[in-house]
Amino acid sequence: MTIDRRPARVHVDRRAERLQALVEGLTAAHLDGLVLTGLANIRYLTGFSGSSALLVVTARDVVLITDFRYQTQVVEEVGSIARVSIEASSLWTGLWQQLGAMANLKVLGFETAHVQHRDFQRLVEAGARWQWRPTTDLVETLRERKDEGEVHLILEAAGVATRALERTLPQVRSGMSELEVAGVLEKALRDEGSEGFPFPSIVASGPRSALPHARSSPRRIERGDFLLMDFGAEVAGYCSDVTRTVVVGQASTEQREVYDVVRVANERASRGVRAGMTGRDADAIARHYIDRAGFGELFGHSLGHGIGLEVHEAPRLARTADGALPEGAVVTIEPGIYRPGWGGVRIEDDVVLGAEGPHILTQFPRELLELG
Amino acid sequence: MTIDRRPARVHVDRRAERLQALVEGLTAAHLDGLVLTGLANIRYLTGFSGSSALLVVTARDVVLITDFRYQTQVVEEVGSIARVSIEASSLWTGLWQQLGAMANLKVLGFETAHVQHRDFQRLVEAGARWQWRPTTDLVETLRERKDEGEVHLILEAAGVATRALERTLPQVRSGMSELEVAGVLEKALRDEGSEGFPFPSIVASGPRSALPHARSSPRRIERGDFLLMDFGAEVAGYCSDVTRTVVVGQASTEQREVYDVVRVANERASRGVRAGMTGRDADAIARHYIDRAGFGELFGHSLGHGIGLEVHEAPRLARTADGALPEGAVVTIEPGIYRPGWGGVRIEDDVVLGAEGPHILTQFPRELLELG
Repeated sequence: MTIDRRPARVHVDRRAERLQALVEGLTAAHLDGLVLTGLANIRYLTGFSGSSALLVVTARDVVLITDFRYQTQVVEEVGSIARVSIEASSLWTGLWQQLGAMANLKVLGFETAHVQHRDFQRLVEAGARWQWRPTTDLVETLRERKDEGEVHLILEAAGVATRALERTLPQVRSGMSELEVAGVLEKALRDEGSEGFPFPSIVASGPRSALPHARSSPRRIERGDFLLMDFGAEVAGYCSDVTRTVVVGQASTEQREVYDVVRVANERASRGVRAGMTGRDADAIARHYIDRAGFGELFGHSLGHGIGLEVHEAPRLARTADGALPEGAVVTIEPGIYRPGWGGVRIEDDVVLGAEGPHILTQFPRELLELG
Repeated sequence: MTIDRRPARVHVDRRAERLQALVEGLTAAHLDGLVLTGLANIRYLTGFSGSSALLVVTARDVVLITDFRYQTQVVEEVGSIARVSIEASSLWTGLWQQLGAMANLKVLGFETAHVQHRDFQRLVEAGARWQWRPTTDLVETLRERKDEGEVHLILEAAGVATRALERTLPQVRSGMSELEVAGVLEKALRDEGSEGFPFPSIVASGPRSALPHARSSPRRIERGDFLLMDFGAEVAGYCSDVTRTVVVGQASTEQREVYDVVRVANERASRGVRAGMTGRDADAIARHYIDRAGFGELFGHSLGHGIGLEVHEAPRLARTADGALPEGAVVTIEPGIYRPGWGGVRIEDDVVLGAEGPHILTQFPRELLELG
């Protein structure tokens, strides 16, 4: 895949193809239709970006059920790809009406990972005239392989994130709180056009950089601290996810040593990951290097995850991931070393797995930066 | 309830009382224990703020199961209120081990609103040696009545939000995009100490202010536009939720007329809402006023909702809400009028329902502001 880095505003509309692929999956699974509740899956198939929807897909019909708040928006976003039904009271009431009006429906699938037990009870009680079968990852599997338009949007989101970081770093000083740095970074993300924050920004300094799941705190940055920033941007629903770790002030020899191990692990994995490889083998590229450098115990999480309409999606790059990475997947590469009480380093890039090899979407230096 | 507006850093630890109240609820429901999966419920009972946890509560035991990423944090947050188990692989594997080690457990509850069907299948398959009963709102009901410490935290979060708005309004100009305004507002929220954004900020201008569920877009603000800002802050996990609508430039007579109807509806409901009243009657205070002014068709959503550890929680203030509002609840009061294609106004405050009447936590002018 050649990455065209020019802005591409017009993308081929793939929704009909995606729906067709899903219908083929339903037929193979002996289902007469599928009721979708996963909002990212619904967005992928129809373009609808609202927070309240049910979607019915059969070989003949595509019906999107939402509420009055989205009356204007849904028409613009969905166009003719689905019939839209606006419900005044409950989406579920609308569902029974829509299903009741469709002929030859007996066996219906539902998304086992996106239906709360409470709503499952609705299916088997109010929806007792149909047989319900749990399905797993029918749409998620389609979403793993990004098309060119999707890669472009993630590339744009990656550009928003890295330009925001460029704007932010010159403003960081010791004495600022992590929350203040988060504010500068998030403002820069907005100024660069991010529609939202795909996950709570992590700005973690000093010993807090050793917490792999820190958020941002009132802690004030001290000279000599590691400062870890893990954040993302969103463009047309597609996410980027970037981490850089810098030193505020001058790096110590020990900081430099740990940093360089993570940097090389990141570079080896970003260059070495391939479509067709298992998630475990991809993870191992970075993990073996960190192990051999003597820090294996301190790399406690997995190497990465898919990104797209969600910031965590398939495939996984982890010790327990047996599946082959599909061509077209966009994944994070984010090795880290965390020494409790001392600090931690993580360097994360977003990489698309092209036919001829990986392409890094997040263009930002990986050398250790010493600020101020 | 008298609202002490001074900062209160030391709050009485109510976790043991909350757990005791839950255990009484379990006994009344003939359950030997409850497996909790709702993260806000787990935080309420134990103080744990991480994103991965299961909690088991019985008359004898309180066991929190989380993963290695939270090893340091969980000990600080939970203290001695629960026994903590750190799981290397799956929280569910840890659950079977913990339950297996407890005597006299036969009938266990699970949270029907917080268990995906996929995980429900785990309960009835891997957890087949126990009988599983769906439960609804056992902890949510406790959470409806805020104690003084909780009201204080929401008051602090309300102060963060209103001070951020004070900082933001002088910086707003026509020609700025909604995303840029969101950036200024969110930076101010961070500078005032917000731990995060309880929901995606809405900055909607001109005709977009008529979309009750807009987010923020690249649209540039024009002179004469309504500018609607709906946003919140988070302090120690507790949320605030505020909306103000201003005019950029000079307001037209029509804008002023619509605005004043919403302002009076807000003021009447904020002053008139009472503990003991049904959610429907509270909703009706604002709705009848807007109806009589001739705009009833354009107020399409409900008046408000509870806020606390979640930005939408019980109770509801809506036409379909039959339940009595409990004393100590903190609720939003957010009437609106939305004229498609023209614009909309919403004015939202957070109000605690004290024994002697309502107290408004969000101190910010409600008069129509004309900027620039």
